[in-house]
Amino acid sequence: MTIRELEDQQLLRLREVFGERVSTVKADLIAHGRDEGYPDTHAPQAVVYAESEADVVAALRLARELHVPITPYAAGSGLEGNAVPWRGGISLDLTRMNRVLLIESANFSATVEPGVLYPELSRQARPHGLFFAVDPGAEASLGGMAATGASGTAAVKYGTMRDNVLEMRVALLDGRVLRVGSRAPKSSAGYDLKHLFLGSEGTLGVITELTVRLWPLPASAASMQVSFASVDDAVTATVMIIGAGIGPQRLELVDAETIRAVNFYKGRSDAEQPTLWIEVIGRDGADVATQLALVEELCRESGGAVTGRATTEAQRTELWTARHHVYYALRAMYPGHSNRLGDVCVPIAALPGAIAITQQLLREHQLHAPIVGHVGDGNFHLLFHAAPEDAATWERIALVSDTITREALRMGGTCTGEHGVGIRKRKYLRDEHGEALDAMREIKSLFDPYGLLNPGKIFEE
Amino acid sequence: MTIRELEDQQLLRLREVFGERVSTVKADLIAHGRDEGYPDTHAPQAVVYAESEADVVAALRLARELHVPITPYAAGSGLEGNAVPWRGGISLDLTRMNRVLLIESANFSATVEPGVLYPELSRQARPHGLFFAVDPGAEASLGGMAATGASGTAAVKYGTMRDNVLEMRVALLDGRVLRVGSRAPKSSAGYDLKHLFLGSEGTLGVITELTVRLWPLPASAASMQVSFASVDDAVTATVMIIGAGIGPQRLELVDAETIRAVNFYKGRSDAEQPTLWIEVIGRDGADVATQLALVEELCRESGGAVTGRATTEAQRTELWTARHHVYYALRAMYPGHSNRLGDVCVPIAALPGAIAITQQLLREHQLHAPIVGHVGDGNFHLLFHAAPEDAATWERIALVSDTITREALRMGGTCTGEHGVGIRKRKYLRDEHGEALDAMREIKSLFDPYGLLNPGKIFEE
Repeated sequence: MTIRELEDQQLLRLREVFGERVSTVKADLIAHGRDEGYPDTHAPQAVVYAESEADVVAALRLARELHVPITPYAAGSGLEGNAVPWRGGISLDLTRMNRVLLIESANFSATVEPGVLYPELSRQARPHGLFFAVDPGAEASLGGMAATGASGTAAVKYGTMRDNVLEMRVALLDGRVLRVGSRAPKSSAGYDLKHLFLGSEGTLGVITELTVRLWPLPASAASMQVSFASVDDAVTATVMIIGAGIGPQRLELVDAETIRAVNFYKGRSDAEQPTLWIEVIGRDGADVATQLALVEELCRESGGAVTGRATTEAQRTELWTARHHVYYALRAMYPGHSNRLGDVCVPIAALPGAIAITQQLLREHQLHAPIVGHVGDGNFHLLFHAAPEDAATWERIALVSDTITREALRMGGTCTGEHGVGIRKRKYLRDEHGEALDAMREIKSLFDPYGLLNPGKIFEE
Repeated sequence: MTIRELEDQQLLRLREVFGERVSTVKADLIAHGRDEGYPDTHAPQAVVYAESEADVVAALRLARELHVPITPYAAGSGLEGNAVPWRGGISLDLTRMNRVLLIESANFSATVEPGVLYPELSRQARPHGLFFAVDPGAEASLGGMAATGASGTAAVKYGTMRDNVLEMRVALLDGRVLRVGSRAPKSSAGYDLKHLFLGSEGTLGVITELTVRLWPLPASAASMQVSFASVDDAVTATVMIIGAGIGPQRLELVDAETIRAVNFYKGRSDAEQPTLWIEVIGRDGADVATQLALVEELCRESGGAVTGRATTEAQRTELWTARHHVYYALRAMYPGHSNRLGDVCVPIAALPGAIAITQQLLREHQLHAPIVGHVGDGNFHLLFHAAPEDAATWERIALVSDTITREALRMGGTCTGEHGVGIRKRKYLRDEHGEALDAMREIKSLFDPYGLLNPGKIFEE
């Protein structure tokens, strides 16, 4: 594939169509050349700030006409280089398309532009007694979350982005805009193109509008922190909690290393053991208290010891702060270090084995990397870190990360639970998907015959 | 497209490969030429009884070699002609692939062959404290349900077939077998081919194995029957029940006409008004009693009157028998009549309007057709019926059905909520999907360049 850089003539043409909405200011180019988690910068030659679907269509048409790569960009909160313009060209900035267009409370849905940040949607839904349930943590955009197939801590209850998008409008390279999915809660009318675009990371088209599900705000919630002698015991408790039909809103596992970091950062003295954070929701205080008692009983059966309990809003915030501050704790413990976030997902029953292997690898390679797991989903992250210039450690991190990913695949898992493929995970897709990867490539060629849509992502070149 | 019939030479070749597993017995051909809901029979020229994935692959390869159509068939419980071999050729019977291969209780999953009937899976899962949650009512096969994107009464709680398949093996026409999806609870690793095959009705490939989700058996359940002055009031109550976060297991609406039929059939005297059947589940009797009290309060706010209540297993069976006997009631009321089942789905808020238009159309055209709705999903069925030879009535049924479907589309709904496209719904896909239909055709061509996989379905020829 030959991708040309933008020539003066091409920039003129961009300016002709987009005027002030094109930027070639160096700071803009650099800002659009990186994300939260990918270490290298690949700057575009131009940034086009789309303000409407028509702008997106025009930009795609121009990319085709000029035969230059085009990569959609919004919050820049991706972790695998998903929005990094690997081959340069145009960065299509969608942050100005940030309007919540419609909240339909009787349909439990909202229609938004792709640049809306998800906390903003929840804020606007609150007066309707509703909220948006997918919470990846970072200030992510809904378009980016849909394009990545993102999820977060509440997926065990509400599902991932894939489960929470009803309908989308997607602009294709050839100028067509498809409406995929349906605002009806279910449909069996033909091929499911919605799910094809969800998680396709801008390699098939650009999402210009989304209708997403909203959920009723829980009337009551309560949380508990439980420490266990081993990860095995914590996962056994998790399986029993789900099996009892409790359906917790969050079920988060961290390892002893993580508790150590949080203790250091927050001046706490929690038991430095594998720990579950569990949040249940219900219709009132009595309901959640009963659920929490049941959770406690099941945890005790696996040898768990309750180390925290929260029934008021203030207590919950305090309890979850520890969980939410894992990243900051890590940064505080290792000032000046850069981070890399591992992300694999395995069948739940395989989780203790996967984490045991992970811990052994970390010991063998003398790495300290806290483990944070969305344990109800079999998904866990490793918070690798090292000084930016410490090449030897980064090499060991790459090796350990690679081994863990291959082990996850061997267990029937996936190389990425919620961060997408981006650049670094491309090499695992053959192992994970076998011949299905060829079918994916064939579909890619159908929608993007010239390889202009976010080239270098998902597929190895 | 030219599709040749099987010639003697071709039959010889089939027998060479499949021996006794090929049938050309007339009764077999006719049995494989129809389903539960499509009025016409289109017999295949041969039935191949696959006993393994290798048989499926061999049959697909032969279909390609001989250039004859091939249509998968299992329970034959489809309603739109989904498995009817419209263009003849080979009917690929999967009923002998009926083994539950694996139940992994700690993963809340089961792996099955496509011919397994879903009640059988629930039966085998019960000793593990689990069940399979998608229940379309008929004795459907799991492969067929996946291929149709089926759902049923419990979708409001557990989702549809699309939400309950984790992984599949799919045999393609070119002999490849793809593994799509993942046994990990979530993944963002590349294009979602699983959802592309789910609901593709055997037009892209043949499902040879499925790993599906199992759910914990509810510890306790209770039901309530509530009658309302209008469908509007019943839907208002539904939105309030969902909005209160109760998350009922079932939320079924029937119209006055249906209650009349059930009263006649079962010798009951329920109020002949729009009626909701609601089932809630919980951790114990007190939990479901509290939920039921809240449901009752919300229904009363919309003018609902409780006409039945069931807390014991025996009472629940009695209460739901009425709902489940709607079809039999109809048959008893109109002996000798044939049926046709309407199936549209709209955004929940549009449901009262859709049902009002439907009732008006039925009155205008002097048709009696009970309305049965999975109201929590915005999905409703019309139970049309007439004497088989009554051409004038069938013509009115076709007209009314067509008008309702187009109205549903106008409201942002879908032409089929859970029965698939099959033959009769093909003509609505352009209206429903616009240019996305062209993209679907392009994908069809990719996987089936000769139009041999279940030709005549989903797309108009």
